[in-house]
Amino acid sequence: MPEPEHHQEGHRLMRALARRSVDRTPVWLMRQAGRYLPEYRATRARAGSFLALCTTPELACEVALQPLRRFRLDAAILFSDILTIPHAMGLGLHFADGEGPRFERPLRSASEITRLSPPDPEEELRYVMDAVRLLRAELGGRVPLIGFAGSPWTLATYMVEGGSSLHFARAKGLLYEEPRAAHRLLAVLADSVRSYLRAQVEAGAEALLIFDTWGTVLAPHEYRTFSLAYLERIVRGLKAEVDTPVILFGRGGGQWLHELAATGCDGLGIDWTVDLGSARREVGDQVALQGNLDPCVLYASPATIREHVRRLLEAYGPGPGHVFNLGHGLQPGMDPERVAAAVDAVHELSPRFHE
Amino acid sequence: MPEPEHHQEGHRLMRALARRSVDRTPVWLMRQAGRYLPEYRATRARAGSFLALCTTPELACEVALQPLRRFRLDAAILFSDILTIPHAMGLGLHFADGEGPRFERPLRSASEITRLSPPDPEEELRYVMDAVRLLRAELGGRVPLIGFAGSPWTLATYMVEGGSSLHFARAKGLLYEEPRAAHRLLAVLADSVRSYLRAQVEAGAEALLIFDTWGTVLAPHEYRTFSLAYLERIVRGLKAEVDTPVILFGRGGGQWLHELAATGCDGLGIDWTVDLGSARREVGDQVALQGNLDPCVLYASPATIREHVRRLLEAYGPGPGHVFNLGHGLQPGMDPERVAAAVDAVHELSPRFHE
Repeated sequence: MPEPEHHQEGHRLMRALARRSVDRTPVWLMRQAGRYLPEYRATRARAGSFLALCTTPELACEVALQPLRRFRLDAAILFSDILTIPHAMGLGLHFADGEGPRFERPLRSASEITRLSPPDPEEELRYVMDAVRLLRAELGGRVPLIGFAGSPWTLATYMVEGGSSLHFARAKGLLYEEPRAAHRLLAVLADSVRSYLRAQVEAGAEALLIFDTWGTVLAPHEYRTFSLAYLERIVRGLKAEVDTPVILFGRGGGQWLHELAATGCDGLGIDWTVDLGSARREVGDQVALQGNLDPCVLYASPATIREHVRRLLEAYGPGPGHVFNLGHGLQPGMDPERVAAAVDAVHELSPRFHE
Repeated sequence: MPEPEHHQEGHRLMRALARRSVDRTPVWLMRQAGRYLPEYRATRARAGSFLALCTTPELACEVALQPLRRFRLDAAILFSDILTIPHAMGLGLHFADGEGPRFERPLRSASEITRLSPPDPEEELRYVMDAVRLLRAELGGRVPLIGFAGSPWTLATYMVEGGSSLHFARAKGLLYEEPRAAHRLLAVLADSVRSYLRAQVEAGAEALLIFDTWGTVLAPHEYRTFSLAYLERIVRGLKAEVDTPVILFGRGGGQWLHELAATGCDGLGIDWTVDLGSARREVGDQVALQGNLDPCVLYASPATIREHVRRLLEAYGPGPGHVFNLGHGLQPGMDPERVAAAVDAVHELSPRFHE
């Protein structure tokens, strides 16, 4: 576990999200707690199932801490799943081995949508809040804690499809054929995400991340209407209530940077298909940028990894506002030594961009 | 089968690709020959396997003609698979039921790459050329015939991964760790694609389409170096040899329109995530645009389909240079009646954009 660092007031992650100066670029990695770590696999085996791991605060806290013991990371992130909200709404989440998430009771009609209401975070989602509280206490202020949720549209795709999808025929069918029912669903999800994230802040989360994983499977008009509008509603709502930085991650969202930055968020998470330098020029000083190393670079040699880290730091250029991360999550087959090589390279190479 | 139409010199598709005036917007649909048609499924059953269907010119010709008997389409497209080239190179293509393509002998080392050479289109790929000849003769000039191939990078992913892939760890690993071997592979594939497409023109293809399905899984630097550069090499090579329009389709390629248009191609195929009006403003009169209805709109009611066709025609706006198509292929579960609704809507609604 890294020692507290007090070269400057506040943690690097928080300073970078506020576009304030830092001594080096902060770094954390999406899915830094995960199957690529043998200690994660051991805890996961002890839990019995992925869902049990998520719903047992002590175990969720334990796996969230594991990567911090190995790597010099600048943030911890809550260990959970984006589908806790629909699970709390009664859809019956389960994970079949080797498959993605499935719902026992997916939404099959507009009348089922009418019956949904936002879960109470301290009731149905208390296990998440307990994990946040425990993790915040265990961290002891060494690094900040990031809470997260899925975007309304992303949650809606799983709720309507019943699980992962290739073409999103049902979910898109709802938008195209029953736009009022779709808006009703997205509105209740936006309310749910907002109160869920606010409760995470009250439980101890110091920064928030919203994953809009499936926004960009939509055509532009539908993206604006059914995904972006609800992201903005959540960000504006949170900003009126709490003083906590919000990061929006939009997979494949390169063409929406301007609109995403205009939601009022503090940071944008970008995937590896976007040029980090162009992205910075596009958003200016409006938001911080988090990303965006191609995760597959971590299959390469340490020397190649170091070279790509250097290129990415150069692409962002000097000055604050960059949170080093991957463009997508760590993958199960990755080697922890290569992960260490990436983190170490950020430590070694980034200070000169902040002199 | 539609009657020959001689309101103006040349077919609508060819005129639109040359940005010349048309009486209405030409329309064809990616995967217009396919599993959503019962007559396709019958012919496919008769063939015994998908590969047998591709490699038997009479059957490939038959399925390519089927959609033209049902719908008022402005083009036929060769029925084949992009992986015929690596199959001809000896990698042993097969299709397991319900799964994607697999190679029996995927590339596993740089030395295996050195041994590859471009197949002779009239030898190892003669079955494709025979299908083109047969189809051109059967079409009798009613509508033009489009030939196609996969892009070098797209073919390389399958050859290195051994089939479809989620993260492209091996293929990207080759780029990151052995860039010289990767360039050797992509160069032999570019030569192969170029001679394959030239041979299709000699056999009767009147327009050419190159699918860069997986270009945009690459980070920007790698996209330019390992995918775009080879697309440009093929287009320049073909343009020096034949007088046939070339369309480039880049899935998710919205942020690369400018660079793709600059390859010297005649048309860009764009997927549904791009705003067609913005795309037209970006490429100006440099290239025609083919696309880009979200295929999932075809799960909606005929009235909704018609409304989305209208929106798309309006987004492109008046004047030539638009080839109506989907942003991706037709899907097996689609209803031929809904497909007809889309095609009919283009016929009915598009003339006023060409007055």
